[in-house]
Amino acid sequence: MEPLRVFSDHVEILDQRQLPQAVRYFNAHRASDVVEAIRTLAVRGAPAIGIAGLYGLWLEARYLAEAGESGFMDKLLVAAQQLRHVRPTAVNLSWAIDRALGRLTPGPADEVVTRLRDMADTLRQEEEERNARMAQLGAQLLPNRDSRVLTHCNTGSLATVGVGTALGVIREGYRQGRVAMVWVDETRPLLQGSRLTAWELLQDQIPATLITDSMAAGLMQQGQVDAVFVGADRIALNGDTANKVGTYGLAVLAQYHRIPFYVVAPVSTIDEHIASGQDIPIEERQADEVRLIRGVPIAPEGMAVKNPAFDVTPYALISAIITDRGVVYPPFDQKLRQLLEEDRHA
Amino acid sequence: MEPLRVFSDHVEILDQRQLPQAVRYFNAHRASDVVEAIRTLAVRGAPAIGIAGLYGLWLEARYLAEAGESGFMDKLLVAAQQLRHVRPTAVNLSWAIDRALGRLTPGPADEVVTRLRDMADTLRQEEEERNARMAQLGAQLLPNRDSRVLTHCNTGSLATVGVGTALGVIREGYRQGRVAMVWVDETRPLLQGSRLTAWELLQDQIPATLITDSMAAGLMQQGQVDAVFVGADRIALNGDTANKVGTYGLAVLAQYHRIPFYVVAPVSTIDEHIASGQDIPIEERQADEVRLIRGVPIAPEGMAVKNPAFDVTPYALISAIITDRGVVYPPFDQKLRQLLEEDRHA
Repeated sequence: MEPLRVFSDHVEILDQRQLPQAVRYFNAHRASDVVEAIRTLAVRGAPAIGIAGLYGLWLEARYLAEAGESGFMDKLLVAAQQLRHVRPTAVNLSWAIDRALGRLTPGPADEVVTRLRDMADTLRQEEEERNARMAQLGAQLLPNRDSRVLTHCNTGSLATVGVGTALGVIREGYRQGRVAMVWVDETRPLLQGSRLTAWELLQDQIPATLITDSMAAGLMQQGQVDAVFVGADRIALNGDTANKVGTYGLAVLAQYHRIPFYVVAPVSTIDEHIASGQDIPIEERQADEVRLIRGVPIAPEGMAVKNPAFDVTPYALISAIITDRGVVYPPFDQKLRQLLEEDRHA
Repeated sequence: MEPLRVFSDHVEILDQRQLPQAVRYFNAHRASDVVEAIRTLAVRGAPAIGIAGLYGLWLEARYLAEAGESGFMDKLLVAAQQLRHVRPTAVNLSWAIDRALGRLTPGPADEVVTRLRDMADTLRQEEEERNARMAQLGAQLLPNRDSRVLTHCNTGSLATVGVGTALGVIREGYRQGRVAMVWVDETRPLLQGSRLTAWELLQDQIPATLITDSMAAGLMQQGQVDAVFVGADRIALNGDTANKVGTYGLAVLAQYHRIPFYVVAPVSTIDEHIASGQDIPIEERQADEVRLIRGVPIAPEGMAVKNPAFDVTPYALISAIITDRGVVYPPFDQKLRQLLEEDRHA
């Protein structure tokens, strides 16, 4: 199951909010359709929204070129701004848009359209290759046999392309016989674990057991967790990592129980403009994501809610960061800068 | 709102599964009705199920006496066994039943009925007084002003009688101006926090904010939590405490962030037969409590689930245990034995 299907004149976006009960795609014809899909989490996952955003830019260029109105490039830049700001925490979205804009050369609208489509296709393929590399590198960190690994949120094919980031490592680990089973955190409030990760693992026939987020600690206490793998939405230069809310608590618990805690993310997740986690903006989402589950009220009406979508795990709690350019260990500073440098010159 | 309303010939049990959306009571006429109410969590909370169990025994005695069948006492003891085993982790239920049976003297059925009703009424009133005492003692542990306290599950009027245990302390702390606001963990899987605690606090107009269980760590990291108060389902002699799943993780997180972590429970929660937490039986409940929320599926069909209702917090993570006979600090061993001794001779 892929989060995006790309055609010559539109993109089909899988509505992940309806998974696993329903598999529905909707058609995006313009950037605004993609903005809406990202805003409502129909498509989510840091790598996937980067790719979706770039296809959105292509769709807008295509639309503008066809309409033949004046001010093609100005209008395209307005759409780019809308796309890059729709979700503030994951860096991949603004990274993908900025990189594309930086590589555009002035020319006829048709050429820009073709160029953007090429860049989106390339990014998509690169992400697939990056995931495959991270999967190989990450699986090496597991002992030879029968690890029980815990993961949070969804970092699989739905959140990215190909095998996924943290879930890609788990898939490869299972293929190699290093992973015996997976503990899946349900990941409240939006249940990406129970709805999406559980579903991907069931489809792959990888043994997995669903738990509520509050059960992870007890399993660690009982020695039932050998490693934790999570993805990342943004990594600061010092290694501090923003990821789905609940990740930080898992990292503290993993350290307390001496369980390795791994972050799996491509180099594009590292934000060269951010020195430490305290500068990462944390998106606060609407209260009803906590007060309702699939439209069913589970709290009194009018109850006040706090709903940060992410939290920040300080670098000191991270055993290693697995990137597509290699595994780095703490202290991360110099090594993350070096990876960025390598990536820039690749 | 009270979990039980007692009449001359039946007991009305508030169906807490339907809160806060609906307030419905159902009538219990025999012990089996109460067993069913406890099993399905229509009534829950360690102190409340102790009281409900004792009223269930009275109802059964009343029924048997009226039916005038032979073997009154044998039949009553069968009902007592059913009541005491319906939920394995909380000790209050078996404690209440055992204590009542131990105090029964042979006599006419009518006298036994009256005696059981008196004991249940007395237990109920005693629990109310115990809660009031714990509330006073616990509130003293808070700094003078504006604490932000976090609590898990429901330990209020619905889980017990009167002000509650941990929530009783919070109520009293608020009355004294020591508590500024309450962070309410939603408490998956059964959402006692969002459904019950949130509702009680809203009714009392105590400022409170609902969070998912996975958000507590981030709030602690940001210095937004000054103390954690939880209840207990069973306390071993060394102070290890079984409570709603998720409690152990909070205790680790509280220690990591140097936030005091308090357990509030009457002396009846201490199990003199259990030396340490590893001997406390942990109830595993059905998978659909995790796979469905209010009947709505949130995970793929057939997904494997682990669903322990409780976890065990080792004594070393507990700053103090607030009982109705005083506040005890670690190491707990001798002090808990002493409290039991005092209670026995009271």
